Amino acid sequence: GSVLVINSGSSSVKYQLVNPIGGEAIASGLVERIGEGEGIVTHKFAGNTTTARPVVPDHGAALREVLGMFQTQGPDLEQSNIVAVGHRVVQGGSYFSGPVLIDDDVLGKIRDLIPLAPLHNPGHVAGIEVGRALLPDVPHVAIFDTAFFQTLPEAAYTYALNAEVAREHGVRRYGFHGTSHQYVAGKVSRVLGRRLEDLNQIILHLGNGASASAVRGGKAIETSMGMTPLEGLVMGTRTGDIDPAVVFHLHRNAGMSIDEIDDLLNKKSGLKGLSGENDFRALHELIEQGDEGAKLALDVYIHRLKKYIGAYHAILGRVDVITFTAGVGENDDIVRALTAAGLESLGIAVDPVRNEGRVKEPRIISPDWTSTLVMVVPTNEELAIARQCIALVDEDPAEV
Amino acid sequence: GSVLVINSGSSSVKYQLVNPIGGEAIASGLVERIGEGEGIVTHKFAGNTTTARPVVPDHGAALREVLGMFQTQGPDLEQSNIVAVGHRVVQGGSYFSGPVLIDDDVLGKIRDLIPLAPLHNPGHVAGIEVGRALLPDVPHVAIFDTAFFQTLPEAAYTYALNAEVAREHGVRRYGFHGTSHQYVAGKVSRVLGRRLEDLNQIILHLGNGASASAVRGGKAIETSMGMTPLEGLVMGTRTGDIDPAVVFHLHRNAGMSIDEIDDLLNKKSGLKGLSGENDFRALHELIEQGDEGAKLALDVYIHRLKKYIGAYHAILGRVDVITFTAGVGENDDIVRALTAAGLESLGIAVDPVRNEGRVKEPRIISPDWTSTLVMVVPTNEELAIARQCIALVDEDPAEV
Ligand SMILES: Nc1ncnc2c1ncn2[C@@H]1O[C@H](COP(=O)(O)OP(=O)(O)O)[C@@H](O)[C@H]1O
Ligand SMILES: Nc1ncnc2c1ncn2[C@@H]1O[C@H](COP(=O)(O)OP(=O)(O)O)[C@@H](O)[C@H]1O
Repeated sequence: GSVLVINSGSSSVKYQLVNPIGGEAIASGLVERIGEGEGIVTHKFAGNTTTARPVVPDHGAALREVLGMFQTQGPDLEQSNIVAVGHRVVQGGSYFSGPVLIDDDVLGKIRDLIPLAPLHNPGHVAGIEVGRALLPDVPHVAIFDTAFFQTLPEAAYTYALNAEVAREHGVRRYGFHGTSHQYVAGKVSRVLGRRLEDLNQIILHLGNGASASAVRGGKAIETSMGMTPLEGLVMGTRTGDIDPAVVFHLHRNAGMSIDEIDDLLNKKSGLKGLSGENDFRALHELIEQGDEGAKLALDVYIHRLKKYIGAYHAILGRVDVITFTAGVGENDDIVRALTAAGLESLGIAVDPVRNEGRVKEPRIISPDWTSTLVMVVPTNEELAIARQCIALVDEDPAEV
Repeated sequence: GSVLVINSGSSSVKYQLVNPIGGEAIASGLVERIGEGEGIVTHKFAGNTTTARPVVPDHGAALREVLGMFQTQGPDLEQSNIVAVGHRVVQGGSYFSGPVLIDDDVLGKIRDLIPLAPLHNPGHVAGIEVGRALLPDVPHVAIFDTAFFQTLPEAAYTYALNAEVAREHGVRRYGFHGTSHQYVAGKVSRVLGRRLEDLNQIILHLGNGASASAVRGGKAIETSMGMTPLEGLVMGTRTGDIDPAVVFHLHRNAGMSIDEIDDLLNKKSGLKGLSGENDFRALHELIEQGDEGAKLALDVYIHRLKKYIGAYHAILGRVDVITFTAGVGENDDIVRALTAAGLESLGIAVDPVRNEGRVKEPRIISPDWTSTLVMVVPTNEELAIARQCIALVDEDPAEV
């Protein structure tokens, strides 16, 4: 059977029809500009890319466009033997520590969490509602970005914020990118042929969004993203860690509203805010041309990464593997080399030859003498979601 | 000669007459509740403590009360041979990397920095203005909490915030408690009989406010407090590090104003916000009584400290000494033991017997086998300020 993976954003829907055994995407696509007049639908199947520009007023219309694409461009969903629809959900709060079959109660909880994820959960709710209506005969599963981090110890997920306020308003570290961190942690164990239970891992998911995690025996014990994806590492357009008093300062002295500061920290900062570019390929070009802002952006990015590696080393006590993944982590050998530089005293180093270039297979890039392995492992969130769906649907008592 | 050290807060003035050679406080005192109707003046000299409750409308009146105490209770300032008045200033921005003789230009800059330190610099300005008027015949020196951290590399002091906004509004890491970190770094070198230039140090200033620093060869290369003293470690009443989006969330969902959130994060959080207590002695008592909030507060505090030690280990590459200082650091052997626990893989440990109890002398508390020394070194900000004043006044060309 196959799994249809749906990732509904505020104004977009990404989808992929996945073969959970082989792992390949049978078909995939994207609906953009939902609710903005003319939308854009892009569908890929069997080597062909089809685009269309229908009016897409809402998520219902978007999913109907998707089903239409499957009907006209293939593959035929009736014959694809879809055994589950997997919905990616960013914020699962403290409710969900793994995938769940979606029923009205689950949907209600995802809706309840909208205050904690105002940019994401509304789109998820809309996508799930329409998805269930359009594909009523298959189980729908919710996969939460936060679920893998529900194992964080209380000392790691608790901010030193007034306890009453924190409790009342759900303020704690949730962590995000969990599906990717969990997938990579498992993949590392299989590639090395070592039991997940025996491995202390640091995982660096460096994409446009970026996060680090410390994983002991397969369980996450710390992560860099917080109540929202804003905290932690330097990202494409997000600040990551910053003195929270900067918000007060900008409000009072720059006369900015809270919405403007939110926008500034989330969308106009990070690599882009420091250099004008959030893509590392463009950033490296600027640096070669002698651009100082770009050089500083890279330096700040690497400095932050080193601090997180050190911090997680301290709390793990022993680190068996550090793994780079996602767009930057998988492709950028300069970032990987700079991150490891100077960490020899922690037993961490990168071999220049092994580090070179881009390879689509998981591999070790540390020299033979180090106590910690450094690896590059491509992530695959859609496959991870599909496999979690299969596992849930197979094991679900109601299905037996 | 002696140095009169003045620390003017928003509603208080602390002072100490210091012998910069021997290091002892000849006299000291405190004016509280400035501008709040009846004030409180406390003066200590020669074993006697005198208190008074005059009306203290402003900083001018406060300093006149101080001079009055010296006149009536002693010592006689005329005969104390005051060679300098040292004013502690919290925020020196990017202007000041060491002590400076105060002239109108310096005072103007401290005034210009008020937007960056709205709670502190106004009191400093008032204290300096009145101090210069009342004691016009001695040089007045400004000692900045931020000065020691002006050596931070750009990658460490730059936030990944939009560069234009950061430049325009002075947003960067400044660091605070610099006088203490610098004093302790020097003291460690002298106590060990090793050159400051040769030592890589981590310093943990754990008082009611708390900060960590990484010091290479006597120069600070990283510190935990940021644009303001809010960032970093868990403190008595401050959150330290927290997802800045928490501010947005509380504003939108708890209906709190920015001033209320500022107050919450700075004054109603930290240890106190988690447990109701910000004094470690009370906290330990609560823990012994089985209080879970107090236990969690301690756990969060220690977890954060470990992360900073690891982070600074990574950027220093090699750590020769980790030093605990200030109220908690000097007195709390439980905090010291818990902080080092589990850091053996970084070469860090604390010997239970050496760690025990409170001693007023600098000492080593690590076992003999570790690569990193762990020390306890009492800080003395007033003495550090007095010595910096002397050094400046002696070397100043105008004085030769
Ligand atoms: N060949 C490459 N070299 C360096 N960086 C790359 C390369 N390819 C992609 N990237 C980086 O990966 C980023 C996208 O990562 P990705 O994981 O796809 O992001 P996300 O899923 O968070 O949107 C790009 O912004 C770019 O910085
Ligand atoms: N004997 C002690 N045992 C444990 N903690 C102590 C002891 N004495 C003082 N402290 C701690 O030191 C703190 C004050 O530290 P201090 O450096 O004086 O603070 P600050 O100068 O920042 O106001 C107290 O809040 C308390 O937690």
